[in-house]
Amino acid sequence: MRISARNQIPGKIVQVAKGQTTAHVRVDIGNGVIVTSSITNEAVDDLGLKPGDDVVAIVKASDVMIGK
Amino acid sequence: MRISARNQIPGKIVQVAKGQTTAHVRVDIGNGVIVTSSITNEAVDDLGLKPGDDVVAIVKASDVMIGK
Amino acid sequence: MRISARNQIPGKIVQVAKGQTTAHVRVDIGNGVIVTSSITNEAVDDLGLKPGDDVVAIVKASDVMIGK
Amino acid sequence: MRISARNQIPGKIVQVAKGQTTAHVRVDIGNGVIVTSSITNEAVDDLGLKPGDDVVAIVKASDVMIGK
Amino acid sequence: MRISARNQIPGKIVQVAKGQTTAHVRVDIGNGVIVTSSITNEAVDDLGLKPGDDVVAIVKASDVMIGK
Amino acid sequence: MRISARNQIPGKIVQVAKGQTTAHVRVDIGNGVIVTSSITNEAVDDLGLKPGDDVVAIVKASDVMIGK
Repeated sequence: MRISARNQIPGKIVQVAKGQTTAHVRVDIGNGVIVTSSITNEAVDDLGLKPGDDVVAIVKASDVMIGK
Repeated sequence: MRISARNQIPGKIVQVAKGQTTAHVRVDIGNGVIVTSSITNEAVDDLGLKPGDDVVAIVKASDVMIGK
Repeated sequence: MRISARNQIPGKIVQVAKGQTTAHVRVDIGNGVIVTSSITNEAVDDLGLKPGDDVVAIVKASDVMIGK
Repeated sequence: MRISARNQIPGKIVQVAKGQTTAHVRVDIGNGVIVTSSITNEAVDDLGLKPGDDVVAIVKASDVMIGK
Repeated sequence: MRISARNQIPGKIVQVAKGQTTAHVRVDIGNGVIVTSSITNEAVDDLGLKPGDDVVAIVKASDVMIGK
Repeated sequence: MRISARNQIPGKIVQVAKGQTTAHVRVDIGNGVIVTSSITNEAVDDLGLKPGDDVVAIVKASDVMIGK
């Protein structure tokens, strides 16, 4: 399945931190940039996310702001 | 001003396309990755965004999904 | 690729309306419910979205509110 | 009060799981589809959300992606 | 209907600007603060939004960032 | 750095409640209105957010709905 989200950045998981309902997943996208994703624990379990996994960080264009 | 958003990725604007109310700004963040941002025309005008500008693509952690 | 978004609802596209930069895609998910999605024109072109297509409406859990 | 969000899907709550600050509410919208919503504990308490409640899952059109 | 969104700020519409698919609605919430909302043209028509209307600007808590 | 988000409302923090991964920050923006923000614990620590701080509540225009 392909998805409409314009931003799909490949990287590698460097950390998965689960809370009671919400988890934070950190993805190294290269160039020294770490992207942080806040998703449900269920999503972490469902996809079996763990450090070292090759993944894609996905962001809808309407959720990207510009700073200058 | 510093902001709480966990993802602040530096890059350079490569394209600004304005519609009637909504503009698309494309930012080269290196490694061949282009990030697309959908913002208001007013924001483009207010910040004077144009190709070649050094900017930061900003995304709240809760707006990042993971694909695997 | 599987994605972390908790809500992935299958349906059929019933309308695609493009503006200058932003398109509205309407998806019939059954039971008489039509879901409206606002995405970039580029996404519509990239995925070749058109009425009759079998698609999936995808929503991150943190973007769902409850009314009662 | 009517709201601008284009997607307002009726259903019935099947589960409420509270964490320390964030709760997950699952809503059966029929056809075997369960929608997951991530909201604050305060919202759960304020609206008195519990399994069996007839509710509406609300999503802004700009938060809906399309997969194909 | 009450909704789970934690931020519901009363104000008065001061401008409605429609594009081809997306409209910008500006709401004066007092204290000299104008809130800008980007919604579909269909929502504007459906609710009959126009300058002078008493409305509520609604924002989910997970969509609010903090700058300091 | 200036950012594209159209809504940047000044206020004062009245409460910071941290969960295991997600924190809720409440900001008094005047006129008796309290804005609730849901952000990561890391953001709270990184910016050193605490009651009494003068801050800005930031919301992208595409995340604002209208109720009438």
